[in-house]
Order: sequence, then C-alpha cells, then structure tokens
Amino acid sequence: MLVVMKKNAVSEEIEAAVCAIEQKGFTARPIPGGERVAICVLHNQGAVDASLFMQLPAVKEVIPVTRPFKLVSRESHAGDSVIEVGEVLVGNGHLTVMAGPCAIESEAGALEIARLVKDRGARIFRGGAFKPRTSPYSFQGLGEEGLKILAKVRSETGMPVVTEAMDHEVFDLVEHYADMVQIGARNMQNFSLLRRAGKSRKPVLLKRGMAATIEEWLMAAEYIMEGGNDKVILCERGVRTFASHSRNTLDLSAVPVVKQESHLPIIVDPSHAAGFRDQVVPLGRAAVAVGCHGLIVEVHNAPEKALSDGAQSLYPDQFADLCRQIEAISNVYKASTNQ
Amino acid sequence: MLVVMKKNAVSEEIEAAVCAIEQKGFTARPIPGGERVAICVLHNQGAVDASLFMQLPAVKEVIPVTRPFKLVSRESHAGDSVIEVGEVLVGNGHLTVMAGPCAIESEAGALEIARLVKDRGARIFRGGAFKPRTSPYSFQGLGEEGLKILAKVRSETGMPVVTEAMDHEVFDLVEHYADMVQIGARNMQNFSLLRRAGKSRKPVLLKRGMAATIEEWLMAAEYIMEGGNDKVILCERGVRTFASHSRNTLDLSAVPVVKQESHLPIIVDPSHAAGFRDQVVPLGRAAVAVGCHGLIVEVHNAPEKALSDGAQSLYPDQFADLCRQIEAISNVYKASTNQ
Amino acid sequence: MLVVMKKNAVSEEIEAAVCAIEQKGFTARPIPGGERVAICVLHNQGAVDASLFMQLPAVKEVIPVTRPFKLVSRESHAGDSVIEVGEVLVGNGHLTVMAGPCAIESEAGALEIARLVKDRGARIFRGGAFKPRTSPYSFQGLGEEGLKILAKVRSETGMPVVTEAMDHEVFDLVEHYADMVQIGARNMQNFSLLRRAGKSRKPVLLKRGMAATIEEWLMAAEYIMEGGNDKVILCERGVRTFASHSRNTLDLSAVPVVKQESHLPIIVDPSHAAGFRDQVVPLGRAAVAVGCHGLIVEVHNAPEKALSDGAQSLYPDQFADLCRQIEAISNVYKASTNQ
Amino acid sequence: MLVVMKKNAVSEEIEAAVCAIEQKGFTARPIPGGERVAICVLHNQGAVDASLFMQLPAVKEVIPVTRPFKLVSRESHAGDSVIEVGEVLVGNGHLTVMAGPCAIESEAGALEIARLVKDRGARIFRGGAFKPRTSPYSFQGLGEEGLKILAKVRSETGMPVVTEAMDHEVFDLVEHYADMVQIGARNMQNFSLLRRAGKSRKPVLLKRGMAATIEEWLMAAEYIMEGGNDKVILCERGVRTFASHSRNTLDLSAVPVVKQESHLPIIVDPSHAAGFRDQVVPLGRAAVAVGCHGLIVEVHNAPEKALSDGAQSLYPDQFADLCRQIEAISNVYKASTNQ
Repeated sequence: MLVVMKKNAVSEEIEAAVCAIEQKGFTARPIPGGERVAICVLHNQGAVDASLFMQLPAVKEVIPVTRPFKLVSRESHAGDSVIEVGEVLVGNGHLTVMAGPCAIESEAGALEIARLVKDRGARIFRGGAFKPRTSPYSFQGLGEEGLKILAKVRSETGMPVVTEAMDHEVFDLVEHYADMVQIGARNMQNFSLLRRAGKSRKPVLLKRGMAATIEEWLMAAEYIMEGGNDKVILCERGVRTFASHSRNTLDLSAVPVVKQESHLPIIVDPSHAAGFRDQVVPLGRAAVAVGCHGLIVEVHNAPEKALSDGAQSLYPDQFADLCRQIEAISNVYKASTNQ
Repeated sequence: MLVVMKKNAVSEEIEAAVCAIEQKGFTARPIPGGERVAICVLHNQGAVDASLFMQLPAVKEVIPVTRPFKLVSRESHAGDSVIEVGEVLVGNGHLTVMAGPCAIESEAGALEIARLVKDRGARIFRGGAFKPRTSPYSFQGLGEEGLKILAKVRSETGMPVVTEAMDHEVFDLVEHYADMVQIGARNMQNFSLLRRAGKSRKPVLLKRGMAATIEEWLMAAEYIMEGGNDKVILCERGVRTFASHSRNTLDLSAVPVVKQESHLPIIVDPSHAAGFRDQVVPLGRAAVAVGCHGLIVEVHNAPEKALSDGAQSLYPDQFADLCRQIEAISNVYKASTNQ
Repeated sequence: MLVVMKKNAVSEEIEAAVCAIEQKGFTARPIPGGERVAICVLHNQGAVDASLFMQLPAVKEVIPVTRPFKLVSRESHAGDSVIEVGEVLVGNGHLTVMAGPCAIESEAGALEIARLVKDRGARIFRGGAFKPRTSPYSFQGLGEEGLKILAKVRSETGMPVVTEAMDHEVFDLVEHYADMVQIGARNMQNFSLLRRAGKSRKPVLLKRGMAATIEEWLMAAEYIMEGGNDKVILCERGVRTFASHSRNTLDLSAVPVVKQESHLPIIVDPSHAAGFRDQVVPLGRAAVAVGCHGLIVEVHNAPEKALSDGAQSLYPDQFADLCRQIEAISNVYKASTNQ
Repeated sequence: MLVVMKKNAVSEEIEAAVCAIEQKGFTARPIPGGERVAICVLHNQGAVDASLFMQLPAVKEVIPVTRPFKLVSRESHAGDSVIEVGEVLVGNGHLTVMAGPCAIESEAGALEIARLVKDRGARIFRGGAFKPRTSPYSFQGLGEEGLKILAKVRSETGMPVVTEAMDHEVFDLVEHYADMVQIGARNMQNFSLLRRAGKSRKPVLLKRGMAATIEEWLMAAEYIMEGGNDKVILCERGVRTFASHSRNTLDLSAVPVVKQESHLPIIVDPSHAAGFRDQVVPLGRAAVAVGCHGLIVEVHNAPEKALSDGAQSLYPDQFADLCRQIEAISNVYKASTNQ
C-alpha cells in the first residue's frame, strides 16, 4: 500500500499520517520524492483496506500493491488445480466439453440431447432446472422435476451433470442431485450463496458477473475456498459493454490473466456471450485457442422450439463441427506449450 | 414485435415465417418494403420472447416493440405511487432524505449519528447490519445485533429505519426489525430474493445493479410487484463504466426516464456512486435538481475511524450543508414543475 | 512511480531493476515489504512512462503516482482561469449559457433562433457549419456559407459565436469567422488538430471524447496549452456505456473532479448526452447544480423540421424554462460556496 | 423504419404522423396492434434518419430496420474482397501477418527487426513514423525520416510497409512512401481524414475506434469507399470497457459479425488490445481461430529499450512461436470451412 500525500502537505500532516498508519499496526516508511511525499505501508499480511487511509488530512490517494486474494492465488498454490466432476477431470491438460440445452424441458428431450452431445464429444451434461429469468412471466424451469431428469440422464449416459442453484433451498436440492453446482453470473456476488457453496463437497462452477473485474471474480472464488471447498471452476461468459452486436462481449484476455493469477481451472461459455448461434462456433474455437480448460455450450435438438435461449443454441451438427475443430486447435495449443 | 426478413428471402420462407408466428397464437401481417419484407406480430398481450422467431429461416432480425413490464409501468397506473416507510411518505412531492453510517458499529455510535442526521434534515435512518463485502476477510457487519440497534434508534429518535437483506434468512430478520428492506445492487437479479420481497408487507428499496439496464431494473421491480408487494422504491446508485475517477458513474438520466416509464418513486445514492466524499455533495445536489424523490447518503461522525466505506461518508457538517442546498434546489424544482 | 517486484524476485533481479532505473536518470529506492520488494522511482520531473520498466525481469507491475499533466493542472496554476469569448467571460463565477441549433440551415432561421435564445438567457450563440456525421449520406452542413451566417448573427445580436472545426483547413476558416473554435468529441485525440489549436489566439471549446478518461481529456487540453494557447474551456457531453435509454451517459462527477485537478472552466452539453429532448432540461438543471461554469444547449424554433438532431433540440419555451430554473439553482450554488 | 405511437395516441395524431411521413416522400402504412399503433415507413432507399419522426406528437419511439451502409455491405457485393498491399494479398483465404516495432527508431534497428520478422513469417512490415501519443511530452516519432526508413526496409526486404497518417499533410507523405496507409483508432471518425483516404489509390487499414459500434466502424469505411477508394481493410484492436487487466477488451465477436455484414477483409491487432506482452500470443491465436484474415503484431528486438509501447512488443522468439501456432490453427480453420 502506498499513501500519496498532496504536494502541499506540511510535515505535521505527514507525521500524522505515519502515526495513523502505525496505530493500525503497520509499519510506515515515508519516501520524499521530487514533487511530493509518499508513505509505504509495510508488514501487512494480505491486503489492507485502502479506505482506511484515504480520509487522512492531506492524503491525495492510496494505491494498493498487494492482491487481496489468498487461497485462489497461484502464489499460495503454484501448480494447476485439477477438479473432479463425477469421474471427469477438469484442468488436467485435456479440454473438457460440457453441453446440453439451456433448460430441461422433458425427460425424453433431455435424454435425446444428452445422447447427441455425448456422441459428438461432450463429457459433462448441462441443463437448467431452476432458471433465472429477467421476466417473472417467462418460463422458470421444471424445478426439482428437472433435477430428477438430470439424474436420469447421468444414470443412462454416464455423464456427470451440472445445473444452476439460485438460493440456499435450491442449493440443497442441486447438491443432492447434480455432480457440480453452478453459480450464475447474476449471483456471482451473492455472498450468502457463496458461503453456502463453501460448505459443499460438490465442485462449483462459478460464472463471472457481467460487470465483474477479475479481482472481484477471484474474490468470489475466495469466499468459496475460505469456506472450505477448494473445488472451484471459473467460467468466463462475457461482460456487458456498449457493443450490441453480441449479447455480451466475450473477454478472452481473462483466460491468460486468470491462469497467471490463479491455480483454478477456467472454462468459457461462448453461448451466453454471443447470444446468437452464428457467433458460438467461432468464439468457441477462439476460447480454446486462447488456452481455456474447457467449454460449456448450449445445444438443442430443435432450437426453434426451445422454451428459452433457442437463438443461441447450436444444432447437433454444428456442435459436432465445433468439437472436431476445437480438438484440433487444442492439439496445436498443447504442442505449443510443451515446447 | 417486428420480424425482419433477409433481402433475399423467397416467398416460401416468408410464408413459413408467417405460419410459425400464427402457430404460436399471434397474428402475423407481412409488410412488403422497398428492400425487404418485415412481418408485424400482433395481438400479443405484453412482450413476446424475441428469440422465438430469431431462428426461423431467412429471418434477419427481430425487433421488440412493446415494453415487457406491466405492473411497474405508468401505462397500468398513471399517477405517482406514494410509499409509506413507517410514517414517512416517499414520492409525495417532498424530498425524503435517508442518512446514516455505512455499517452499524455500536449502539452509542448509531444513536449519536442518528441524532446528528435527524437534526440536520434526515427523515429515515440507514445503517448496514449485514454487509455484502467483496472480500471474505472484511468486516461483515454486526448481524442481528445491528438490527436490534436499528430498532433502538427508531424508538429513541422516531425515525423509521432501512437496512439491507442478502438472503431469505436475513430477510425474515430484517423484515421483523426494520421499516424498509433494502435489496442491494449485487442482488438486483437475485430472483429468489425478489420473490421473497414480493411476499413481504414491508416496503422494499431496490437498488439498480451495476450493469443493469433500466428495463432489467424495472423487471426486477416487476418480480416484487407480481408477488403481491406494490411498495417498491427504486434507487439509482451508479453504473460501472471505464471511468475510474469515481467508483461508479452516476446515471442521472435514469431519473427522468424511470419517472416517465413507471409510477414508482426513485431516489438516488450519491455516496456509493461517488466513492469519494468530495463528490457526494455535488452529486447529491445534481440528483435533486434532476428531479428524484429523495436521497440516501452515508454520514459518519468520525469517518476516518469507520469500519467500512469511510472515504465516502460525509462529516455531519457537510451533511448539514447538503441538506440546506438540496432543500433550496428542491423548491426551485417544485416551482418549475407547478408552472 | 512504484516498481513492484514479483514475490519470488531474487536480489540480482532487484539490483538489475535498480540499475535500469538509475540508467534512465532517476533515483531508485528499494523498499523491502512483508511479502515483496517495491522500488520507488524518484526525482522524475512530471510523469514517467510506465512501460519503460514494465518489461524488466521479475517486475510484477508498475504503478504511476504523479499525474502526467502540467499546464492544465491546478498544481501549476492555483486560481480559476477565466476565458474571454468575445466579450463574454466564462469561468468567472457566473453561469454562461451557449445555445443555438445543431446546424446552421439558413440565415433567416439562424437569426430567428439567435434572437429567441438571446431573449431567453443565452450569452453565446452556437451552430454547426461543418458537421461531423456518422454517415457520408447525411447533411454535412453549409460550410463557409454557414460561417458567414454566424458572423452575421454576431453583428446583428452582439452574441459571440462558437462552431466546430474538423481539420486544419476548416480550422483556419472557423478561426477567421468565429469567436471560439470547438473541437468535437470525435476529434478529442486528433493530436494534429490539437496542435493547430495550440497556435490559435481564439479560445477553444474542447469536448470530452466518448470513451476518454479525465486524464486523457486533460492531456488533450495540455496539447493545446503546450502549443501556446491557454484559452481552453472543457465540455462534458456524456460517455458511451451499455445504457441505451439515453444517447450517452452524462458523467456529472467529472465536473467536481476536473475542478479539483484543473484551473480550466468546464461546461456541460446536456443535449448530446441525452439525445432525447425530454431529458435535456432535467440534465441541464443537474449540471448546474453539480457546479459547472455553463451549459451549451441545442435549441431550434421548429425542431421537427431540423436537418439534424431535431429530436434533442429544445423548443424555445422549454429553453426559457431551463434558463429560469438554472438561474435559480445557480444562485443556490453560489450562496452555498460562499459560505 | 417503424414509428411506434404511444398507447393513448388518438386517431388525429396517427393521421398527422402518417401525413408527416408521406410529406418526406415515403409511404406510411399504419398497423393497428393489440396495444398500440405502429406505422411502417416504406419505399425509402437506404436508411432514413430516425430523428426525423421522433419529435412528432404522440410518437413513442422510432425503430430503424434497414442498415445504413451500402458500399461496404455484403448485400451490395456478395463475394469477399481481396486487397492488394504491394504484392501481398489480404483476404484471399490465407492468413496475412503484419509485424514490426511500434515506432521506427533508427534505420539499423528497423532493418534488423524487419529481417527478424520476415524470417519468422511476416509478409508486411509495420512501424510508426508519426505517432499519436496521449501526452505532448512523449516521443512523437521520427516523422518523414521514419517514412524514408520504411521505404528502405521495403527495398531491402521486399516487404510492403504500412504506417499511420494522422492528418492531410501527413497523409500525402505516407501515401508517397508507404504501401498502405493506416487510420488509427483515435481517428476512426475523423471524417476529413476519411474523405482524404477516399481519394487515395493506396489501400487503407482502418482501425476500429475504442468506443465504436460495428455500424459506426462500417460507416467510417463507407466514407472511404464512397470517396472512390474500395481498398479498405478493417482492423479490430479492442474496445474500452470497465476491465483493467488488459489495456482494452478485444472484441473477437466483431470478426464473424463483420464478415457476415461486409465483404471487406478484417484483421486483428492483439498487441494494442492486450497492452501486456503475456496476453499477445494467446489473443493472437484466438483471433486466428475466430476466423480473421490476418494479424498485425508489434515485435521489437529489444523491447526493454523501445521508445514506445515496449511492454506489449513481442520478442522475436515469441513472434516465431506465434507464427508457428497460428499457421496450424489457420489450417484447422480452413479445413473446417471447406467442409
């Protein structure tokens, strides 16, 4: 932490700031510069709350140096974490594809889609049972009935299943039926839900919030890990910008940055980022090329009849194309990083 | 809803689109234009899901016309809603000021601040008991102990109190102790919490999410109203942009737009938008000048010792200045709108 | 400047960084912290290019401390600059209103609007002769003919005139005819045009770019001042965000921040920020309440017939209302700051 | 164009709107809906200015349907345009790599870097002679001396050269010396410069503005094509968002969208998007995987000594790795699209 004093700060003010910093238990070391004095705050363990010093007299600004996250940081765990979802490994150097419909609509439909995506390369099945919808008048999912269908899909196809939980009550249910619990973008800073996830023994798929910085996202993962659950997979799904040609703007630079800062695996959701089917395959290829550990993709056997998000769901043949292409790209990527 | 066909759409494709629209129960009326055909979708009640038609062959784009919200819309309730918080009215033409510390830290402190802000013009007391914090290592609030202090503040000062609820369990508690329940920006699309708020008889202060459009915000209010609770107050508190000189960018144009679209009262939180004390008073004046129904402001008797958000808390004297200034501006505003 | 080393940096790397910094002519002072070493860069005059040190081995990040602007900074000129536009003063404590049509369409029309706005409170006349338009097929302005009309307006009404210049050639013309030259948002970082403006003896109205930080904006003003022209007025006109209910998001927090950082006057353009007439009056009031030195507003005697931006132009009566309201608000503001 | 009337519009207002539309020379067709009336505007050639009708009484909103661009549109030119830069083709199905230093610093340095990048896979040499810099105190490039060095590089290595022009005067020089003229992100809506480019016989590399929509970007290209120059290459280089872990957020979804809307080739600049060297190679791979026609990359033989943007310049070995990887990914992409 660096506390920068105003140009015209007098020595009494500088001393007062030093005093205030030391009263909080830190070491303060003033550094006279050409134009102004800055005070280094030392001997803090982890991050210090910048606002503690921002209001001292004659302080111009406070600049944090240390990152605020601990358990998610590569500095506390140098290797790559590999997360087990059912019997499927994520983050072990092989690409993991998760696929399925936006929402579970019926047992027959779910089973049909599950077989289609498994044949074409998916290893984990996704499907919404409890759907967060902008409008209270939209289809909200089948609820527990949908979870039972997911369990059926697992027993029929052998694929582990992932689905979203939106509150404590639903979390209990999802944890019971599913192999991985998803926390959606809108709940990324639902700290109560993150604490609940921290107590779970199931892995958690944590989507990035639409306006979340990487630091806030990793801090959300920190909540889960601090609660005792170290099985967290991060998922980049686009951020909100002024651009309107896609639903969100997929921020692929997040992948190398997260991989540098954290040991947790990171996958990409090109479907929700794009919002339009034609962009999903290109963005899926790009996500694999940038170096992510897997994709989560919406696929439907009849997107034009889907009850939600049909416009961004791939046809099974498109999904097959995507799987072929990303496998080849993934091999290029692996060859390059092994050199 | 307008379904725009591609330039090269053949008549079979246009007929197929008409057919598909009518199968969903709507009336389709094709309009041949100079360059392409567009199909109007009629006789829908409320909004139609655009994605239903986006995937039809030869469809270029789908353009929604009707707004998706109903109960919050001024089209369903022409007059201004006035919400009672305890015995204080919000939205009745007089400015309502809510003030208090970011977090409740002690009974003595809360009472002292409450008396200070009441003397200077506040009508409702605010203070956090359960704090949503980016870091699991930051002070999380006093919990139920804080709620009891809030109740004490009310009985001592006569001011109704508002505080945030972050999940169902906390909502039950807050509803019991407080006069108004706040749903914070990070939970604006926590639909489970919105449904809980819909069942409450207490008024709800619904903050705008950091990346929420006005439509999404009003749809969040629609969740609460659809659940049976029509006592909703909206609160603009800044959106996330590239600008870093303030914590968020206060979007004051939201105020006239919300007042045009909806009958619900709208207040402004300049403290969280600014993040820095020096901006709070100017932005507070601006918010009143733009025409909001009230302000919610952080005030602390010793901001430099506050356990959270001290840098954006006003000193009591600054708050007194703010109250004087906004009262005068509010009178200008009232005079102008009565002409 | 603070050069933060990686946690695992060895002493040779730290010494190498110190060496590299000193070779550039600065003083380097390493500060051993609890977790890592940071090196303070001292004795720099003004800002140092952060990228100079970012690529040294084992450097984690480089944190600038000093602001990069000099001449525009309040640290180099403590008082408020007052700019003369013709005989009208901007920044002298009284609100200055500039008004007129988006584009000059005819002499008769311009004169009529000029008289209307002068009667209602405008002190400076605005009107576009050379219009930057997104489409090459839109009306591009009357060119020099428009400038002659502006000169006529000045001689008939006594109001100084301001209009936009888009390149060197047009700048020569505008400088000849007008009292102030506007550099538009799209040209805020047209450094060649800024250098041209630096050689002018006419005052310059510098609009903020749609995605410009305050630092970039002040640096654009620095280009003009560094060239020898210290008559710069800044104009906030909204930034581009995800929000679509207004054309841009008016960033009123820029006003107190610019006033703190710089001695230059700052005015606000609510018309281009809003894009819709209904938002212009509320945002104009808010801009005055936040403390700006003036407004620039689009007014048309028959907006529905305007050749450009009719939807955001005020009717003369609305402009009269606006002027009455902002005068009252300005008095509140002046009274409050004199206390 | 669809003119949507307010719910409570009376028939006189609807007739007045029809009248106003027809007076402008269009055909108006009112469509009574369930809740409100909308009026279709027909027989317009190209786009209609929405603001023409927005101010009619009882009009709620105006919704554009037709795209405003013509010459750049795939609807006016179905095939892919292939642009010749010197003797190198861009957009012909093979990936084109452009590389070189941010700024030309010396003849010896430029020649050394040129040979390094040519050996490793570059086909076109890039290097700045006139540099747009945020600060007037930063290195501004060697000017015409730099252009002469670029010409020398071409004659020595056979690679065509591209460099930026910032105003008319510089454009004349760059056009004389270089094989392609770059218009930078900050000048994307410098319409005067676009018109100058429209008169050139040299191809133009048009970078996307930091806050430009795809429509605005294509309209900027339309200015150039409308002026008579159809040799335009588009370059995505990131947009400005709240995210701060990269300099800009690379918007790769722009690539499939531009390829769908326009026949012009599109390349990607991962260096300026990233701002940090470690992100450049991953983003370069992703850009090729998403389907762009080429990359433009900053490479320096000694980035730590570069006079500008050293932190984002690749080392020659990294560039060699990048070229190997993208060639392989490009082959995957070509194989997939030929199926």
